[in-house]
Amino acid sequence: MDEPVLLTGAGGRVGRAILAGIGEAYDWRLLDREPVAADALPDGVTDDDVFVADVTDDAGVREAVEGVGAVVHLAGDPRPNAPWDSVLANNIDGTQTMFEAAVDAGVDRFVFASSNHAVGAYETDDRTPHMYRKDDEFRLDGSELPRPSNLYGVSKAAGETLGRYYHDTHDLTVACVRIGNLTKGHPPKEYERGQAMWLSHRDCAHLFDRCLAADYGYEIVYGISDNDRKYYSIERAREVLGYDPQDNSAEYTFGGEPREEVEPDSA
Amino acid sequence: MDEPVLLTGAGGRVGRAILAGIGEAYDWRLLDREPVAADALPDGVTDDDVFVADVTDDAGVREAVEGVGAVVHLAGDPRPNAPWDSVLANNIDGTQTMFEAAVDAGVDRFVFASSNHAVGAYETDDRTPHMYRKDDEFRLDGSELPRPSNLYGVSKAAGETLGRYYHDTHDLTVACVRIGNLTKGHPPKEYERGQAMWLSHRDCAHLFDRCLAADYGYEIVYGISDNDRKYYSIERAREVLGYDPQDNSAEYTFGGEPREEVEPDSA
Repeated sequence: MDEPVLLTGAGGRVGRAILAGIGEAYDWRLLDREPVAADALPDGVTDDDVFVADVTDDAGVREAVEGVGAVVHLAGDPRPNAPWDSVLANNIDGTQTMFEAAVDAGVDRFVFASSNHAVGAYETDDRTPHMYRKDDEFRLDGSELPRPSNLYGVSKAAGETLGRYYHDTHDLTVACVRIGNLTKGHPPKEYERGQAMWLSHRDCAHLFDRCLAADYGYEIVYGISDNDRKYYSIERAREVLGYDPQDNSAEYTFGGEPREEVEPDSA
Repeated sequence: MDEPVLLTGAGGRVGRAILAGIGEAYDWRLLDREPVAADALPDGVTDDDVFVADVTDDAGVREAVEGVGAVVHLAGDPRPNAPWDSVLANNIDGTQTMFEAAVDAGVDRFVFASSNHAVGAYETDDRTPHMYRKDDEFRLDGSELPRPSNLYGVSKAAGETLGRYYHDTHDLTVACVRIGNLTKGHPPKEYERGQAMWLSHRDCAHLFDRCLAADYGYEIVYGISDNDRKYYSIERAREVLGYDPQDNSAEYTFGGEPREEVEPDSA
């Protein structure tokens, strides 16, 4: 991509994973509510490329999006237990503000960070915990209706629907990535659900790279590694985006120490 | 139902159709932003049963919902071209306010007025206008993902997702009715799309009656009459709710005058 890519929520967990993995591959412009730590900036990104604004601040968003070719929209309240007022403002209204500014600025492509919480209530009492295990056949593939497990998940589903609307009415290329459990270095221990939806940092960066490079219209895909325990299908991401994950939570036995040196994030 | 039923947006088009048809069948409590016209009140409904409040007014909503057994939630900005700020406040935030107040008050059942606009963008250039005609096989059945044709439709899809969340987490019975083209007396003339999704007043009242009486968990159904031209399936409404529509826009030839005296609403 010749034009810059705007990364919102750049200082957050997902943003740091993306920049660590594909920081050199694009001409990034960064937006965050807080100044982004210098050690998170890829080579070549200067303070002039960093915009500090809230995503509900229309003027600030419009300034940041001017002249970019694509938006990777991660900004929002990331807490699964966030109260309604916060997800309404930051996640629903903020995402609409970003979409509207993007189409007005002539942006071609928009990658939206959705969440496993948009479909968390498919994990019913009668399906768990066996749905988190290798021998279980249950799969969600992105064509199912949302079933959020919390109001944060409701807000992410609303963002997906906004993406559908802006794709249909403005011919914007839109990918919605239902991000699983992103942790650095190794999967969460003693947490079957987290191992089932684990997303390694390198697979995360690779998936967002594919969302920026592949040819498609509107997609909802699951953002997880190729875990034996998975109940989210990654077939659509493989077929349409060319996603080719390298990691699998089953490779970590947790019999003793993790295989390699790791720096766990919070799950 | 022994307990009162709260009807929000009672003074609007759908509310008047419901009250005209099943006004005697329930112990209604009415909520509207404006005082409800006296001629719209069913027998037995007094001024004490009418609450004037905005659905974004948490205290007003909580007062109205106290002690009711079910909510029929129609209130919101009904304009398909309504601007984002209005549908965000009135339709998304207002619906969450109503759901939250309902579960806190111990309400068992919630019927939500969704809209054909939640799926309007399925009407693509390559499908129209033949999808509006009798011989066309295309059907939407309520299991498909939303594809809104406007931000109003986005807000209605968000209301459906809120309903799914409150059903899954609070065991609330929830029906979402994607209302078609409600007109009084006869279908819209010279408007194939409107004839395809026509909903007569008596079928409207009957469908909401079934939503209040049938035994189900969470449903998305289409609210249209049994039109020859339909591209919305009514099978789910028939099977789960016992919906048995009496009208069909094909019965109106419009060769001359409509068959019976009518009072058309705006579409």
